Amino acid sequence: MADNKLQQQIEFIIEIDKLKSIFRRTKILDNSRYENDAEHSWHFAMMALILKEHANDPDIDILKVMKIGLIHDIVEIDAGDTFIYDDSLKEAKCKNEKAAAERIFGLLPPEQRDEMISLWEEYENQGTSEAKFAMALDRLGPVVQNCRSRGHSWKEHNVPAGKVMEINSRIGEGSKTLWDYAKGLIEDTIVKGYIK
Amino acid sequence: MADNKLQQQIEFIIEIDKLKSIFRRTKILDNSRYENDAEHSWHFAMMALILKEHANDPDIDILKVMKIGLIHDIVEIDAGDTFIYDDSLKEAKCKNEKAAAERIFGLLPPEQRDEMISLWEEYENQGTSEAKFAMALDRLGPVVQNCRSRGHSWKEHNVPAGKVMEINSRIGEGSKTLWDYAKGLIEDTIVKGYIK
Repeated sequence: MADNKLQQQIEFIIEIDKLKSIFRRTKILDNSRYENDAEHSWHFAMMALILKEHANDPDIDILKVMKIGLIHDIVEIDAGDTFIYDDSLKEAKCKNEKAAAERIFGLLPPEQRDEMISLWEEYENQGTSEAKFAMALDRLGPVVQNCRSRGHSWKEHNVPAGKVMEINSRIGEGSKTLWDYAKGLIEDTIVKGYIK
Repeated sequence: MADNKLQQQIEFIIEIDKLKSIFRRTKILDNSRYENDAEHSWHFAMMALILKEHANDPDIDILKVMKIGLIHDIVEIDAGDTFIYDDSLKEAKCKNEKAAAERIFGLLPPEQRDEMISLWEEYENQGTSEAKFAMALDRLGPVVQNCRSRGHSWKEHNVPAGKVMEINSRIGEGSKTLWDYAKGLIEDTIVKGYIK
């Protein structure tokens, strides 16, 4: 018989399986279908592992960035995916996601619940090098995807080039190198006429 | 213009997107579809994060276990998923996966290529606490999934109860606690008559 603590941990692990059914606005790179949050989170953590040397802060705690990558979207199990370019939803998103964090991370034993909520809040508040680099990676992924699919989700949702530049310029807060790279990709997509 | 090293890293990150299209024999927990390797790898890394206290080795390096979880199936982009209960494929699997590791991790700059191949080999060789705990997590996931779906993939592939016990008993090499738990789940599935 599993003790109570292990049982709580297993219930959490079972609950978060639902992240595999939360779909994003971006497609996987072969354009065959939309990407779900669980596989996106895996790709995010892989990017942290591979791109860590490009963080503005050379002393960044990469384990923390990876943890943020793995858990940052779990709240979307309850709150759903919000398109980053849709400003009108910001306030409701904040409230819904906070309630979701309390419920889902609340399945864990208290100490782990507190650690997970604290990691998620750190990401949302964007006050640390780890949170900033995490955001850089979270945004770089869709830039690469969109630029390879001729601006697919930007076109589908009528996002103008200026807005794409504005939203993604925050990549530079976590990594100037990655922003230089992403900016080049976006400029190329504009030059080719895929977004206006 | 991105330097050559960053360009290699990005090419690797793009290549591994294909892991999202490699499907396993187990379904996601709502039984709606088969699970892919990328979302499985995310779940694996989450399990490492949440269950680390149950490793037999109290001094385990959990960052290494998480890295193993994230990268352990990348070779399947070329080599495909091999059903763990199919002994006939073991030899070919080993050769194909080695070639896949060389090609895919070979996209990275040399230092990172060596680190990734070394992590993958460490997992395959099962000689360290980290590799053993990683295997425990890799097997625990499907046990939980199968026991909740009344033995779905075991029944579909005619795996007898004895074989399920034998294959999964290796969970105990990484975590006695998790094997006690998994064994209880499997016994319950046998008692209920879902597998024979």
